[in-house]
Amino acid sequence: MSKILLAHGGGGREMHELLRELFSIVRKTKVGNEIGLDESDDGASLTINGRIVISTDSYTVSPIFFPGGNIGKLAAAGSINDVAVMGAEPIAALDGLIVEEGLPLAELKEIIKSLVTTFEAENVALIAGDFKVMPRGKIDKIVINTTVIGTVKDHIITDSGAKPGDKVIVSGTIGEHGATILALQIGIDAEKENLKSDCEPITRIMRIAKEIAKIHAAKDPTRGGLAMTLNEIAEKSGVRIDVDEEYIPIRENVRALCEMLGVDPLWLACEGRVVLVVSGDVAEDVVDSLRSAGYKDASIIGEVRKGKPYVVLKTLSGGLRLLEKPTGEIVPRIC
Amino acid sequence: MSKILLAHGGGGREMHELLRELFSIVRKTKVGNEIGLDESDDGASLTINGRIVISTDSYTVSPIFFPGGNIGKLAAAGSINDVAVMGAEPIAALDGLIVEEGLPLAELKEIIKSLVTTFEAENVALIAGDFKVMPRGKIDKIVINTTVIGTVKDHIITDSGAKPGDKVIVSGTIGEHGATILALQIGIDAEKENLKSDCEPITRIMRIAKEIAKIHAAKDPTRGGLAMTLNEIAEKSGVRIDVDEEYIPIRENVRALCEMLGVDPLWLACEGRVVLVVSGDVAEDVVDSLRSAGYKDASIIGEVRKGKPYVVLKTLSGGLRLLEKPTGEIVPRIC
Repeated sequence: MSKILLAHGGGGREMHELLRELFSIVRKTKVGNEIGLDESDDGASLTINGRIVISTDSYTVSPIFFPGGNIGKLAAAGSINDVAVMGAEPIAALDGLIVEEGLPLAELKEIIKSLVTTFEAENVALIAGDFKVMPRGKIDKIVINTTVIGTVKDHIITDSGAKPGDKVIVSGTIGEHGATILALQIGIDAEKENLKSDCEPITRIMRIAKEIAKIHAAKDPTRGGLAMTLNEIAEKSGVRIDVDEEYIPIRENVRALCEMLGVDPLWLACEGRVVLVVSGDVAEDVVDSLRSAGYKDASIIGEVRKGKPYVVLKTLSGGLRLLEKPTGEIVPRIC
Repeated sequence: MSKILLAHGGGGREMHELLRELFSIVRKTKVGNEIGLDESDDGASLTINGRIVISTDSYTVSPIFFPGGNIGKLAAAGSINDVAVMGAEPIAALDGLIVEEGLPLAELKEIIKSLVTTFEAENVALIAGDFKVMPRGKIDKIVINTTVIGTVKDHIITDSGAKPGDKVIVSGTIGEHGATILALQIGIDAEKENLKSDCEPITRIMRIAKEIAKIHAAKDPTRGGLAMTLNEIAEKSGVRIDVDEEYIPIRENVRALCEMLGVDPLWLACEGRVVLVVSGDVAEDVVDSLRSAGYKDASIIGEVRKGKPYVVLKTLSGGLRLLEKPTGEIVPRIC
């Protein structure tokens, strides 16, 4: 058996045998003595005393393998990041796989290995999951849903906490995931162009920043890119955000691709970066700490002001323009 | 705009406007004062003191509308049921929608309405979600992932608690969901044949049963049907289960369809039934209570014995045969 068959999704003998094989690599299948993946019961259990954050996302990226990762790594990192940007420590995850009949087993194994090792590196237990097979032509290879749960130690970070006087930090160069997927979708050899997805968990960035400062707002700029993230923070916090294009870190090859295609890099998704809003007096310290820890492109890109909830961009040429919410198709199936 | 466009999945302006419209019908968007769907932040929050059960499933049923429900109702009820059979009270849900470009907006609205009203009727808050669009031909109309969280009041019910001397109860007629979907897939007019999915939450059944008896094991017989469920309980509990076909409630039209197609009704999925294993001395009381509450087909179908973990079926003709785990394709995309 080298390809996935419809019978693997039937809930019978074949499915149970396949899942046992595929998920035997998971080492952390439960939290404490709770019910976990090993039991393959109807769900998992957790004992919690306090506040948790929970987030779910479905991943549909095409192509499913790309420089810097694959849909499995993306699905693990993406939901970890949604929990981490809210200030929580991810502890447990659930996954839902939907696979196309005929998908090579080797590809599925590689994807699951990436998913599992990404969770494992973050000490996140994979406690439950679901597996479905759709007939050939009814789904494009594979989609993955992940749900991640995190515990809140101190306070939850929302999108609505930015205050006038705060500074806006981005943890690294932007648009790399979006640029890589876009390039692949239109037939450009991303690897040759040295394009690589930035897909990875941002938990360490959050921990470093939280040690230095109280984070007023944090968000990972995925779909809609930096432009959408800044607009959401401005809108939900009821503040104006001014950013300076000069300080927004963008790799040269990403900028070149965007210019060639007429795409705004500020609209392109990141999958391993975070936008942090902190008090003006600690912003430099946060950036210094991030840079010392290896995030050498971390930068203060702007500041929060009193005013209508707009994002104002000072362009490289020195002019000012409204940085609007992205609209239209942007890049389909980026994540 | 009457159809879903790729732009609706871009994470920009169009998506946010569509989601605001589609999910404005949700009344319970959070638990207490926690962060919920309304905030459209990166995730939701909950404060928990004690044990929770959490379950996730992806729903891929085809056709997406069927007598008795649609994929939205199924996705809500299905994950509610996974939590309820473990003895927990569902309190919160998250959803992940993946929609095909071109899906009529009216269909999407009807599906979301079913999802939302099913959660609402169970007092389950819809606290967060995700929305993706895949290009035409890359996914078949819509798939939905749901994750449900429930709180555990007393003890968790697993598949492994069945003990010799226990009785096995089924809460109603079996195989109706599977039979309905199978009929539709092969072009039989299910409605004319009076076939209807049994898809619905089984929370009330669990509450009634828990009032009367300590439930030793419980499981909803979805994919793989009653045959798979009984085998899983036998295997995980390390017991033999003997069931008597004479007492297994099957509607005449389901039996007729199965005979015509050469399908075993014990392999067909239910989406609103539950198998309960309770001590022999209270089994009649549980069945009486269920029947009084309107579950008129609730029946004791067998008993748990010491022995190898097999399921032995006494057939209508009086013979004994091993009821094996289903194998092969059964019915694809049943749920």
